[in-house]
Amino acid sequence: MLGGNVVGFTGTQSMGVDMPLQDHHQIVSVDDHLIEHPRVWQDRLPEKFKAAGPQIREVDGKHLWYYDGQVYPTIGLNAVAGKPREEWGMDPVRYEDMIPGCYDPVARVKDMDVDGVQAALCFPSFPGFAGGTFFRAQDKELALLCVKAWNDFYIDEWCSVAPDRYVPIAILPVWDIEETAKEAARTAAKGARTFSFPDSPVPLGLPSFHTRHWDPLWEVASETEVPISLHFGSGSFVPGFSYASMKPVPGQLAAPDGPFAVAIALFSTNLMWTTVDLLFSRALQKFPKLQFSLAEGGIGWVPYILERTDYTWERHKWYQDVDMDTRPSDLFREHFWGCFIDDEHGLKNRHEIGIDRIMVEVDFPHSDSNWPNSRKRATEVLADIPDDEVEKIVETNARRMLRFPRGS
Amino acid sequence: MLGGNVVGFTGTQSMGVDMPLQDHHQIVSVDDHLIEHPRVWQDRLPEKFKAAGPQIREVDGKHLWYYDGQVYPTIGLNAVAGKPREEWGMDPVRYEDMIPGCYDPVARVKDMDVDGVQAALCFPSFPGFAGGTFFRAQDKELALLCVKAWNDFYIDEWCSVAPDRYVPIAILPVWDIEETAKEAARTAAKGARTFSFPDSPVPLGLPSFHTRHWDPLWEVASETEVPISLHFGSGSFVPGFSYASMKPVPGQLAAPDGPFAVAIALFSTNLMWTTVDLLFSRALQKFPKLQFSLAEGGIGWVPYILERTDYTWERHKWYQDVDMDTRPSDLFREHFWGCFIDDEHGLKNRHEIGIDRIMVEVDFPHSDSNWPNSRKRATEVLADIPDDEVEKIVETNARRMLRFPRGS
Repeated sequence: MLGGNVVGFTGTQSMGVDMPLQDHHQIVSVDDHLIEHPRVWQDRLPEKFKAAGPQIREVDGKHLWYYDGQVYPTIGLNAVAGKPREEWGMDPVRYEDMIPGCYDPVARVKDMDVDGVQAALCFPSFPGFAGGTFFRAQDKELALLCVKAWNDFYIDEWCSVAPDRYVPIAILPVWDIEETAKEAARTAAKGARTFSFPDSPVPLGLPSFHTRHWDPLWEVASETEVPISLHFGSGSFVPGFSYASMKPVPGQLAAPDGPFAVAIALFSTNLMWTTVDLLFSRALQKFPKLQFSLAEGGIGWVPYILERTDYTWERHKWYQDVDMDTRPSDLFREHFWGCFIDDEHGLKNRHEIGIDRIMVEVDFPHSDSNWPNSRKRATEVLADIPDDEVEKIVETNARRMLRFPRGS
Repeated sequence: MLGGNVVGFTGTQSMGVDMPLQDHHQIVSVDDHLIEHPRVWQDRLPEKFKAAGPQIREVDGKHLWYYDGQVYPTIGLNAVAGKPREEWGMDPVRYEDMIPGCYDPVARVKDMDVDGVQAALCFPSFPGFAGGTFFRAQDKELALLCVKAWNDFYIDEWCSVAPDRYVPIAILPVWDIEETAKEAARTAAKGARTFSFPDSPVPLGLPSFHTRHWDPLWEVASETEVPISLHFGSGSFVPGFSYASMKPVPGQLAAPDGPFAVAIALFSTNLMWTTVDLLFSRALQKFPKLQFSLAEGGIGWVPYILERTDYTWERHKWYQDVDMDTRPSDLFREHFWGCFIDDEHGLKNRHEIGIDRIMVEVDFPHSDSNWPNSRKRATEVLADIPDDEVEKIVETNARRMLRFPRGS
């Protein structure tokens, strides 16, 4: 097993600078990504499903995923780690186009060492961040097996390479609430520390958070004390006027006029919508132990949205179907966790957000990541923050939310 | 003509308290609303259009608008001024349900005096904040006349009651860019100080800000130095997952599960989307004098969105169709103005937004308004802010943006 210490990073103290991020602080990232290797499903599906199950074929020099009668033109959405920015924009077409840490857990640990990062929580790529590919598939029996296969692959094969470096996450068969609750319970029992769930089920055509449809999942999550990770975009909704007005096409980005930079800049508005939906859903009152992690949403917007939501609640609770007794911002501080890559405004206002609720993310191998300089950048952005708060932000908050103690 | 002085408000200095909001500071609000009286269009339309033009009929004890073959069930969307919160939720059904200041400019001046407010910029009600009712109408010849009639009503009839208390605004026939440019030029010549434009044209099925379709309007606005007011919701888009997934129905609010409080809390995300669209549209580089006022959008989100947009630009400009040379936050500070009703987070971070770009709004007679305590509430929220900054925020920034000097 690869070791649990940061071996690649040169400690900041050796530079003679008094930095608030100390060598003994281990960075626990709550948002990273992996690219599935070609045999993830072929190794696990029953014989009769293998032909229709996800598999890589080489066509015209490209590696393509084939699944459920469809071709998926990209193997590694946005796997840019190790490339200069001038070369971004094209997804890799062959595994050799990526650095091995994208799809190899042994190589990834070395990439994390170079980056000064102790632990990573890897969301899926081919399945979508919350399993949307399987949600959209025709054959639901196969799709359910594919969900389970990814969870077994990630927990048994990937995480076991270095259990203290990888945080187990599970995706769910969200089209079937009974199977969702069962798979949540199954994966929690085998070590899942968080469940990935769509940032909103509504754009997928599923019941909203305001219904009681999801209660069986909230119940399992509460009982097993496993938080729900809501990764922006996992509900297939792309923010921005040009995008929101279009129906999503599986495997394709919408192609409106205007650069995709608009949507990238607005990603967090998805999670603003999710947060306010949940705050007014009454689910948090019914399930007091339920926890939500806002993945890749930033934190700088939180104080404004909480102030605005409280203001709305105070003025409109009198005639609307909302809980008259519980202030939304109080619910937020008991049920939500946020993370950031680079968010000076959020850090400046960290006490309005809640110092016990802020975590970091690395986002390897995507384009928002600072790899291989994540620790260096964290040192810079945390330079003016007291040591005890830095420790919470880079490490102990995430360990607490995920029940992922040192040496686990 | 009614006077230009605040006559109803008891000055704070007489209370012996040293307040940063001084008696000589005149509050200029950049977002208010009026309810059209029954004869706005009947007084102005040519004879042959009167029967189809907007008119009030009394049916079953209710006052209803009839127009273009449709019935509009509400005469005063959200006209709650003067009502206790426990009675909110139902729109008024008769003019007598509202206080006269909603539809009578003489009474309104008295309401503004009581509120300690010097000047108001009144958006339309029946036409929609940016004329959407006429945009959706079948008979476009009549619709164009209705747009012109509202502008003539507001500028000639309403504002002339107290030219130093009412800021002229004009709506535009946005379905026709040639007529839009002509009406903008016509109303600017007769005194319009701002044009109301949809917060996004895309949900209306019109070309986005990324096209050059709107250049003729930007050209008139630049030449006449008239800023564009973007009021959230004026493009018919209601934020939130439950709402955004539905097609808007004219004259009806969408009815998804979940309380409407979700959308109210999220209103400003519309203007986040608008802002980022415009920052990446290249329109601001082409029209350096173009100015946008974000109406009823709050300001507390601005630092986060600007930081995030700059971050996106720095990382993704290399391969996307965006201006490589101009930082989005620099464009914001030269082209945008924000306003607030109650926004402690925004005021705390006012220098990140730009002290010369922040204004106040009263939002009379809507439910977000603090009327008749707007000045009292402003005094509270501005209590810790230096005098010269308070003066900019409550008065001089708005006067500068609108070219609306004292005694105008």
